[in-house]
Amino acid sequence: MSLDLAAIRAAAVRIAPHVQRTPVLTNDALDAACGAALFFKCENLQAMGAFKARGAANAVFALGDDAAAPGVVTHSSGNHGAAVARAAQRRGIPGFVVMPHNAPQTKIRNVERYGGRIVFCEPNLTAREAACARIAAETGAALVHPFDDYAVMAGQGTATLELLEQAGPLDLVLCPVGGGGLLCGTAVAAKGAQPGLRVVGVEPAAADDVAQSFRAKKPVHIAHADTIADGLRTNVTGQRNLPLILQHVDDVVTVPEDAIVAAMRALWENLKLVVEPSAAVAFAAIQSGALGVRGRRVGIILTGGNVDLDHLPWLKP
Amino acid sequence: MSLDLAAIRAAAVRIAPHVQRTPVLTNDALDAACGAALFFKCENLQAMGAFKARGAANAVFALGDDAAAPGVVTHSSGNHGAAVARAAQRRGIPGFVVMPHNAPQTKIRNVERYGGRIVFCEPNLTAREAACARIAAETGAALVHPFDDYAVMAGQGTATLELLEQAGPLDLVLCPVGGGGLLCGTAVAAKGAQPGLRVVGVEPAAADDVAQSFRAKKPVHIAHADTIADGLRTNVTGQRNLPLILQHVDDVVTVPEDAIVAAMRALWENLKLVVEPSAAVAFAAIQSGALGVRGRRVGIILTGGNVDLDHLPWLKP
Repeated sequence: MSLDLAAIRAAAVRIAPHVQRTPVLTNDALDAACGAALFFKCENLQAMGAFKARGAANAVFALGDDAAAPGVVTHSSGNHGAAVARAAQRRGIPGFVVMPHNAPQTKIRNVERYGGRIVFCEPNLTAREAACARIAAETGAALVHPFDDYAVMAGQGTATLELLEQAGPLDLVLCPVGGGGLLCGTAVAAKGAQPGLRVVGVEPAAADDVAQSFRAKKPVHIAHADTIADGLRTNVTGQRNLPLILQHVDDVVTVPEDAIVAAMRALWENLKLVVEPSAAVAFAAIQSGALGVRGRRVGIILTGGNVDLDHLPWLKP
Repeated sequence: MSLDLAAIRAAAVRIAPHVQRTPVLTNDALDAACGAALFFKCENLQAMGAFKARGAANAVFALGDDAAAPGVVTHSSGNHGAAVARAAQRRGIPGFVVMPHNAPQTKIRNVERYGGRIVFCEPNLTAREAACARIAAETGAALVHPFDDYAVMAGQGTATLELLEQAGPLDLVLCPVGGGGLLCGTAVAAKGAQPGLRVVGVEPAAADDVAQSFRAKKPVHIAHADTIADGLRTNVTGQRNLPLILQHVDDVVTVPEDAIVAAMRALWENLKLVVEPSAAVAFAAIQSGALGVRGRRVGIILTGGNVDLDHLPWLKP
């Protein structure tokens, strides 16, 4: 198995009963400000507030009954964990979620809301993977990796299939990149559905492992990704992601922290949408001038809206 | 001329090139919390961030060429002003907007963005109306009243026509009430398109002139409407609104200030939408228990999303 357009189309059919067909918004003021036609795919309005509902639903519902019965397990800084909990709840199987003990309260409540069985661990990848492996061994639960999983990537790619149906042909699709699951799904869907469509990943400069890996054409990891875009701190550690990115993605650009906050605020003010910092990085690349889009039709995946409303970055003392 | 379903249907055709067909969102968590099926009509995602774009577009484009040429004038605490400025700009005529000098910066910028010619006045109705009359006399501009105008009401009613198309049959439609333009349009559209559909207006308890007028069956005005829902401070002073409300609206209920803030926050957190306090009062009636909706299919007009993001009510010291 690998990842191709057929797999993404099959995922779209499989998850249709379990996810929202989210709207695509346009905005005159933002279009005028950047001289382009921007099409925002509102995955912050997706079930549980993030595109992650798509990949998790596809992975959980693609399992055979015997494989699914003991449940599923994952590790996630938040949105993917909630998405796996939700998909497991909808399938009626246990959903175990390994989370760092410093995860934001909003994201913890999101997992609990869907009956997820939370197992806290130290906030590092080794601890997460060890906890996951232990639970899988003890319970027989199937691992639903946040990004290094073709079924998850296929689910994430369904957002781009919808975007192209809703917006019509585009010149460019932008999405944030953390572990690379969304970027892989986006790129394969985009290139498959509209050959020649340019796909660019956007990353916080403070967590630029994918940009570095893209240039080096081999995995480059960074130790401390200190970015407000907490969903994008992950390194592209999967076996499957970087090869797909190198094959299908045209470029990976980076944005500084202040551009992310400014973009987040501009999206709230103009689109009237609550988007999380991770969801703002793609528009940040446009607003900051890191990426030229003048005269182009640009699709932007707004990935999620799970924000702690008591701590907004532009109101920090 | 009066207000009827035919006028609202004609308005829908007239304004279609100038406004968005906004999405209707549903949310499992909010449905579960109140035991009902809630359909949120997202007029915060409307052009210029509020349903007011509809009524203003209808009134401005319904004018004959000769009447339109000198321009239009209105007074408004904000959203209607921006909506008239925008409609005038799209028609290529001057748009004069009388605003109180203490209007929020966000709303002033919204008027300026559309080329509105702002005339500041004292923050009271007498001063506003005097400034409006003076400008009309001096320039020949046509008055587009914020609510006491059948064309404006017909435009506002188009949101409910769309809501019923998008959500299917409902048991109840809720909307906030300030001057009464939206409530009149909503009620006539709802009763016309689905006879028997219950329509309830919701008002801040601190600005309950319509609730009082509804009970007394005659206009009751209050002097100082001190509510966070700044779009609803207006008294129902029009000649046309109260008679239509008494004829078509089933009830008017009120909600306290803390319920408005709690509802606003719940909408941001669950729907991932930026809604202004005025837009949250209808859901506040449900969340606070002021209105029982268990087992019902309920349409809710989320009226606007123009908020000062530096001053969120739940973050006040």
